[in-house]
Amino acid sequence: MILKSELRKNLEEGLPVLIYDFDGREEEVDMMFYGGKITWKSINLLRKDAGGLICYVTTENYGKKLGLDFMVNIVKEKYPNLAKKPVYGDEPAFSLWVNHVATRTGINDYDRAKTINELHNVISLINQDETLAREKFEKEFYSPGHVPILLSRGLNKRKGHTELSISLLEYVGLEKSAVIAEMLDDGKSMSKEKALRYAKYNGFLFIEGNEILKEVSL
Amino acid sequence: MILKSELRKNLEEGLPVLIYDFDGREEEVDMMFYGGKITWKSINLLRKDAGGLICYVTTENYGKKLGLDFMVNIVKEKYPNLAKKPVYGDEPAFSLWVNHVATRTGINDYDRAKTINELHNVISLINQDETLAREKFEKEFYSPGHVPILLSRGLNKRKGHTELSISLLEYVGLEKSAVIAEMLDDGKSMSKEKALRYAKYNGFLFIEGNEILKEVSL
Repeated sequence: MILKSELRKNLEEGLPVLIYDFDGREEEVDMMFYGGKITWKSINLLRKDAGGLICYVTTENYGKKLGLDFMVNIVKEKYPNLAKKPVYGDEPAFSLWVNHVATRTGINDYDRAKTINELHNVISLINQDETLAREKFEKEFYSPGHVPILLSRGLNKRKGHTELSISLLEYVGLEKSAVIAEMLDDGKSMSKEKALRYAKYNGFLFIEGNEILKEVSL
Repeated sequence: MILKSELRKNLEEGLPVLIYDFDGREEEVDMMFYGGKITWKSINLLRKDAGGLICYVTTENYGKKLGLDFMVNIVKEKYPNLAKKPVYGDEPAFSLWVNHVATRTGINDYDRAKTINELHNVISLINQDETLAREKFEKEFYSPGHVPILLSRGLNKRKGHTELSISLLEYVGLEKSAVIAEMLDDGKSMSKEKALRYAKYNGFLFIEGNEILKEVSL
């Protein structure tokens, strides 16, 4: 396992960490940033070098405190026929898609960085003043928007990049707030081998789900 | 205005058309493909050269026939405080985010092309057999997924890229099925001038909302 201090240092400096989930699951690598260190350049890198869906990640518990539910529960109620599970088995981690009110159209790098910076501010406020955090969330965001919020159910319930990111942040002692996107290649998802070479070339840390599982108590 | 036959030929050959909305509205350029001519290479181009959210577009009427509602109506019911309007004024065109059941994780170019090809097949089936189309949709798709469906309310109600794309397809006589993504630049949205240069360099057609408005009866 990569040293805890090294992981924390990289995340605090606003550098991404690459996370591979597990053989036999998605078998995908996600690029992950700490939610407290996002600038438009992080969004630009996620967009250009990763290429997947740029998602904000926090916990189910924090989500509940903001009044958020999983989208799959809404789909089960409104569109029961569409509430199937993906082939890799888990229920999706998606909650709502949001924009911050101070964005223009919500999609460019500045706008998505703004939405995510303000989501991080709301999440960081929960432990100080839950009511104020929820008020701020409801006042400053609208939905549907361009940034999906993913909620972690914990690694004991689901072993996706959402849960791996949150466990990694808990492990290094940072707020449970992350941004992730899948690493893609032309046509297909980026192979683990190619993502490893990309990480090495750029000096980014690469970590596997199995390494994270060894360090956390489920 | 660009010749109708030239527009149709480009779309039928699977080439993108660039659409600028209006001064004073989003002031953004979207890259648009005909939904019936999507391959993984179209998704790759949307991802790399456009950079925005890759969305499937059809009409509110077709959406209703599949049982789909606007996401903003669900938000109004479940999260009334989050149902604000974006700064440019219109209610969002988003309905559900879906994946086709035959995708792996839903996000790579092959998977998003598969989801969109099958959405196009469902839409094309509506005018032949509405019941079968809905059954096929409910059997073969799940939500939440990685491809947002946008529904056009018509240009008389909303003047976004969603409605402009559908009006353009009606104008040239193709099925109301498109794929769009916003053209982005480092940090900000791509300027109209830069998008025009990009179109010229690549031999893609560029059309303005005002030109489309002139050709269609509202």
